Amino acid sequence: MRGLLIGRFQPFHNGHLMLAKSILDECDELIVAVASAQFNYLVKDPFTAGERIEMIHEALKEALVDISRCYIIPIINDENNTRWFLHLSSYLPKFDIVYSGNEYVKMLLKDHTKVKDVKPFSRDKFNASKIREMMINDQNWKVLVPNAVANFIERIDGVNRLKIIARSESMPQEW
Amino acid sequence: MRGLLIGRFQPFHNGHLMLAKSILDECDELIVAVASAQFNYLVKDPFTAGERIEMIHEALKEALVDISRCYIIPIINDENNTRWFLHLSSYLPKFDIVYSGNEYVKMLLKDHTKVKDVKPFSRDKFNASKIREMMINDQNWKVLVPNAVANFIERIDGVNRLKIIARSESMPQEW
Amino acid sequence: MRGLLIGRFQPFHNGHLMLAKSILDECDELIVAVASAQFNYLVKDPFTAGERIEMIHEALKEALVDISRCYIIPIINDENNTRWFLHLSSYLPKFDIVYSGNEYVKMLLKDHTKVKDVKPFSRDKFNASKIREMMINDQNWKVLVPNAVANFIERIDGVNRLKIIARSESMPQEW
Amino acid sequence: MRGLLIGRFQPFHNGHLMLAKSILDECDELIVAVASAQFNYLVKDPFTAGERIEMIHEALKEALVDISRCYIIPIINDENNTRWFLHLSSYLPKFDIVYSGNEYVKMLLKDHTKVKDVKPFSRDKFNASKIREMMINDQNWKVLVPNAVANFIERIDGVNRLKIIARSESMPQEW
Amino acid sequence: MRGLLIGRFQPFHNGHLMLAKSILDECDELIVAVASAQFNYLVKDPFTAGERIEMIHEALKEALVDISRCYIIPIINDENNTRWFLHLSSYLPKFDIVYSGNEYVKMLLKDHTKVKDVKPFSRDKFNASKIREMMINDQNWKVLVPNAVANFIERIDGVNRLKIIARSESMPQEW
Amino acid sequence: MRGLLIGRFQPFHNGHLMLAKSILDECDELIVAVASAQFNYLVKDPFTAGERIEMIHEALKEALVDISRCYIIPIINDENNTRWFLHLSSYLPKFDIVYSGNEYVKMLLKDHTKVKDVKPFSRDKFNASKIREMMINDQNWKVLVPNAVANFIERIDGVNRLKIIARSESMPQEW
Repeated sequence: MRGLLIGRFQPFHNGHLMLAKSILDECDELIVAVASAQFNYLVKDPFTAGERIEMIHEALKEALVDISRCYIIPIINDENNTRWFLHLSSYLPKFDIVYSGNEYVKMLLKDHTKVKDVKPFSRDKFNASKIREMMINDQNWKVLVPNAVANFIERIDGVNRLKIIARSESMPQEW
Repeated sequence: MRGLLIGRFQPFHNGHLMLAKSILDECDELIVAVASAQFNYLVKDPFTAGERIEMIHEALKEALVDISRCYIIPIINDENNTRWFLHLSSYLPKFDIVYSGNEYVKMLLKDHTKVKDVKPFSRDKFNASKIREMMINDQNWKVLVPNAVANFIERIDGVNRLKIIARSESMPQEW
Repeated sequence: MRGLLIGRFQPFHNGHLMLAKSILDECDELIVAVASAQFNYLVKDPFTAGERIEMIHEALKEALVDISRCYIIPIINDENNTRWFLHLSSYLPKFDIVYSGNEYVKMLLKDHTKVKDVKPFSRDKFNASKIREMMINDQNWKVLVPNAVANFIERIDGVNRLKIIARSESMPQEW
Repeated sequence: MRGLLIGRFQPFHNGHLMLAKSILDECDELIVAVASAQFNYLVKDPFTAGERIEMIHEALKEALVDISRCYIIPIINDENNTRWFLHLSSYLPKFDIVYSGNEYVKMLLKDHTKVKDVKPFSRDKFNASKIREMMINDQNWKVLVPNAVANFIERIDGVNRLKIIARSESMPQEW
Repeated sequence: MRGLLIGRFQPFHNGHLMLAKSILDECDELIVAVASAQFNYLVKDPFTAGERIEMIHEALKEALVDISRCYIIPIINDENNTRWFLHLSSYLPKFDIVYSGNEYVKMLLKDHTKVKDVKPFSRDKFNASKIREMMINDQNWKVLVPNAVANFIERIDGVNRLKIIARSESMPQEW
Repeated sequence: MRGLLIGRFQPFHNGHLMLAKSILDECDELIVAVASAQFNYLVKDPFTAGERIEMIHEALKEALVDISRCYIIPIINDENNTRWFLHLSSYLPKFDIVYSGNEYVKMLLKDHTKVKDVKPFSRDKFNASKIREMMINDQNWKVLVPNAVANFIERIDGVNRLKIIARSESMPQEW
């Protein structure tokens, strides 16, 4: 059985990792679909698809997950939501079950595949949008993500990138 | 003479129906162009183009309109507004006059075709964005749309769909 | 029950009309999906979606078909074939069965909906690509299409258009 | 040496002109890249790419700039920011240096080309978004743009266009 | 009066130059629209839009044309041919007349603008597709283009580029 | 060091596998980029990106390759060839060297990254287009691909799919 986990992973944090591992407890294989893959260098999407794939790969390895049971695959957006299930299907190995706590995702997929309701682990704490906020404000975000992710973001100077993006979108860019 | 009525029709309400009928009083044929056709399952665009076409078709039939005088046609958006007139022209049977009370529409089309100014019937009351709001808040929206539309939306469980979409966009979707 | 007939209808001919009528014998309603809707003024696609919709509408009326049981809807192409069923679904009223003699169409749709195998009526004779060839060569193509279609094509000077397109693509356009 | 100046130029104002001239003091040739070229008739992008090209051309001529040293070229957006440098490169003559005071632009381009930091001339005063605001409110915007631009906008009735757009986006467009 | 000349200019040759000059004899200003601007490194489209703009600019200067009377503007393709006139209009300064000897171009534009029939100068000789063929076969193509163009193509090693492209498309690229 | 191997892999054959393994002899990690990812159910592209990813994953595992050193990533096409390097860069983890025997690939990438020339292993034999031909003609293609790939294609009834596609494109599809 193959389980599917969908997210933008901006960035991949401990809540994501815990869910990924718990899916691997139940399924033979895990697919991590990296959504909004065409976007990058934006406040909501600072990291490229390639960077997100790399941080997820590193985080899974660090957590001693068997990578040979994992697929990490970028998915560009499809503006036509009705097509979403088959859009996913065309880019991913066949999946048997989707893990999601989001009722919108469930609504779009439930007629086509099995969706298992999952509760995000400490959503208040492990929340990518909050983590990006903490990065911008020099707060202690590193404890919320796997070490491998923290190291990767440091290596690509990701916090500085995010700060520049945030400043550019808030100041009058146009002149 | 063929008259054109353009809208997103999310959903098609009594104000739309009254205007459609009055166009058919003046013209031989009516084209209803269903705009933003590629969008669906969004707060502003909950229904698919196909669903909107079906509700308009049903509403016109219920109102005893002669369907053989009507065309109901989906139109995807064109991001280049200057091209809009010819974009419409390529997807629609030749039209002689556009009925619109919107001065923006008039501005984009007036150099290319005849635009007749129409006043929306009781805009305060018959307003699709307000009707969607009422659906979300369990208010009495059904009196504002043709019976056929109310029945159709019930059949596809549309109010529940809209509520899920609205909740998803307002709560922190990302985790 | 609603039956679906898919084609490019360049142009709509007697074989198409006969099939449309036979679907209406079996189903309550008929959807005619006009594919490759974004293309026009090309050798394979000389007529706009709007023109094709108009010729089909006229032909069905002329054949005394009850138009209130019909939907004629343009469909733009989706380059990702795997998504085709849901692409269709988003633009069309819900359909229960697709009528097609094409095994490729069957392959793409059979996992998602019912497909009924139909034999085209005299394919050798009623063949749109052959009819376009006859138009270019001033052969007697008019007997192969409904009168309404022949008249419509005449009205828009369609044969001349097709000849110009054909010459432009065969001569060295570039200079 | 060829210098590149990038902007949306909605509209082209005196601050833009002063920078363009100062680039021509340092470089042999100037490229003015007109970004968001596919957008028009929007509050943030009221003028078409063609209109913006024409106003820049007129303003440079009026300022007695040697046009044979200038390229004015529209650039459509690329949603994938990582590709931006090569996106620009494919549409523009080879450039040696980009003039920009925007740190976001610098971040996206600095690994690929030389970027020279420039301070906008009186940003508070010469600011396109502020100028559009002044147009809408009938304030004295004309002193902030080259005469040629003021005349051009008058000729195309641009202020009225902008007012209609602004009203359409603020009033309930949908009905 | 502003005249419009449309082409792909792969490459810009003496026939193009002669026509450009003769338009400037009749019109106040000339627009050169560089079509298929998004394509490059293809057998039919070896040069980028930016390169083509640069070679046209250089060729006009070399021919002592007053560049301040000229606009050289890239145009990406629009797959919907019906929209072509307004597609052009959105990217170009307002034009009064199109110069073309192509009856297909005339058909698409004649309902919207004035089209003047022009005969290409020695089409057999000055033909871009033939010139590309000559480049590949090391024949004497340089006499067919302005010196500035020959020099430019040499500078970017364009003949070698074209040969590589041609070999890649003809040999079994896939392995 | 990370090495990049690019292909459409329709299907992934022994030549691909041998090259992948030899890259892993030289590099720490291997990226396999699955090009033309948006295409499927076409004669040249019968398998979806997801299917190709799965067959490559299975083939590498079967060959006892350490999957934790591998990335298998779909890449959609970009029609603007000049942008290709940064298009790849946005979807892939940072790569240090590209392995390719194709001079066209080399030309597009050589200004941006290191490209190592590789000779395909027995190109005559291990050639995807030839293998698809053999599938259609019931020849013994299985010896040319890894067992895992042969089994996968059998499991999804891939040969039959390819035959249907091939017949559909060669027979007069239109009617």
